[in-house]
Amino acid sequence: MAEAETPNRSPEIRKDKIHNRWVLFSPARSRRPSDFKAKSNPQPNNQTECPFCAGHEHECAPEIFRVPADSTNDWKIRVIQNLYPAVSRELDFQNPVSLVGDVAVSGFGFHDVVIESPVHSVNLSDLSPAQVGEVLLACKKRIEQLRSCDSIKYVQVFKNHGASAGASMSHSHSQMIALPIVPPTVSARLDSMMEYYKQTGKCSLCDIQPNELLIAESDHFISLVPFAATFAFEIWIIPRDHSSHFHEIDSEKVMEALFVHALFS
Amino acid sequence: MAEAETPNRSPEIRKDKIHNRWVLFSPARSRRPSDFKAKSNPQPNNQTECPFCAGHEHECAPEIFRVPADSTNDWKIRVIQNLYPAVSRELDFQNPVSLVGDVAVSGFGFHDVVIESPVHSVNLSDLSPAQVGEVLLACKKRIEQLRSCDSIKYVQVFKNHGASAGASMSHSHSQMIALPIVPPTVSARLDSMMEYYKQTGKCSLCDIQPNELLIAESDHFISLVPFAATFAFEIWIIPRDHSSHFHEIDSEKVMEALFVHALFS
Repeated sequence: MAEAETPNRSPEIRKDKIHNRWVLFSPARSRRPSDFKAKSNPQPNNQTECPFCAGHEHECAPEIFRVPADSTNDWKIRVIQNLYPAVSRELDFQNPVSLVGDVAVSGFGFHDVVIESPVHSVNLSDLSPAQVGEVLLACKKRIEQLRSCDSIKYVQVFKNHGASAGASMSHSHSQMIALPIVPPTVSARLDSMMEYYKQTGKCSLCDIQPNELLIAESDHFISLVPFAATFAFEIWIIPRDHSSHFHEIDSEKVMEALFVHALFS
Repeated sequence: MAEAETPNRSPEIRKDKIHNRWVLFSPARSRRPSDFKAKSNPQPNNQTECPFCAGHEHECAPEIFRVPADSTNDWKIRVIQNLYPAVSRELDFQNPVSLVGDVAVSGFGFHDVVIESPVHSVNLSDLSPAQVGEVLLACKKRIEQLRSCDSIKYVQVFKNHGASAGASMSHSHSQMIALPIVPPTVSARLDSMMEYYKQTGKCSLCDIQPNELLIAESDHFISLVPFAATFAFEIWIIPRDHSSHFHEIDSEKVMEALFVHALFS
């Protein structure tokens, strides 16, 4: 995601005609603050409170919902707008890919933050499986809201842990980006899986052979290190039943996955 | 490039059937030393000599050639084998894509190092344009050697500057990797350019419109920031004449590019 000055300061998606790919430009991202001392220092400042902490809600961008829904100061999870969004929910969502000249489209989309705990020093790994399950179910709920917008074609949930991973805030949080396009890396994977299906009549994920790479298996999921992993500690959690979307998961399956696959222990 | 334990310790290229892509596994890379204190600290240790320095040639992997060719202790540039190669020149180059099972091929290839100066503390930016030109011409010479091997389909020259860019040695050097396959990102760009040619009858690089993004232009090259740049300070140097390969460049053009486009000033 590149950062650059543009006259109108709105995000835009620029076409790279040489590589036939799109690049998201977001001027606002360069203005976001960081509570890490420096990108080269993974240790956060010794602060005890930040805008993501309980009691600082007024310092954040607008809230979308909280968990529990009727909580006040005793919230467990808050899903809020990102104050420095990579894409803009203010742009014309009726026409999300309107051309800016012939080489760029407006950067419409949603960029949200999931605050995973009200307490500054609590990491995701400090939460109980039930609490982590609530975070995943909050993501599911937000995905279901976003997919009701016809212009949204893709939602990604991601978590940057630590400054070296790209996090600017040390308070435990995840992010969600909803886009009017399917990113090329995703459509390439879908094309690859479709090709496998045409050749074999099978889904390549259902057909996966974990062999010695298996970590755990349970009624509804297997977890494994992929044979051709692209980074250290890469783990995939694959549903046993042929399920296309994360938001199809239910509370019972989330908890089973967390206990059996011991993701956060 | 992933690192993992494998029984035979030889590099191999594994097939990811889900994404339909190949991933290079190189156990030897995990054993390479670093003279940076830590990855999070961009400052090298206060050492004054290392295996890349003049007088330490015996600590390196075998030399391929040096510049000047007849120099002894007064060499300016050395092209050597990488002691911790990502790919192996020892594997069966007659059959570089022999299957290991049905999901991997042997990691045949060449991984070389270009030592850009005999002096430990000299950076590429400290060299004169003529000296930098000699480095580029050494790369050209090595590419010409590598392309004479029928099994080699692609050569990449790259330079990691500093620990945060992935460098493990602070002594100024570049690297070259020669592979028996064309990487997917490269073939995707070639496919994209072929598609542009079919649609317009033109080469998309010859047809590029630098506009306000132009940095410099000269008789044989233009340099520019691409409109859809994917990282900060990204610069492309494009030959004006339709030239497909870096090794087609001659000494005169290298020097023109260095002076006019002021890459290292």
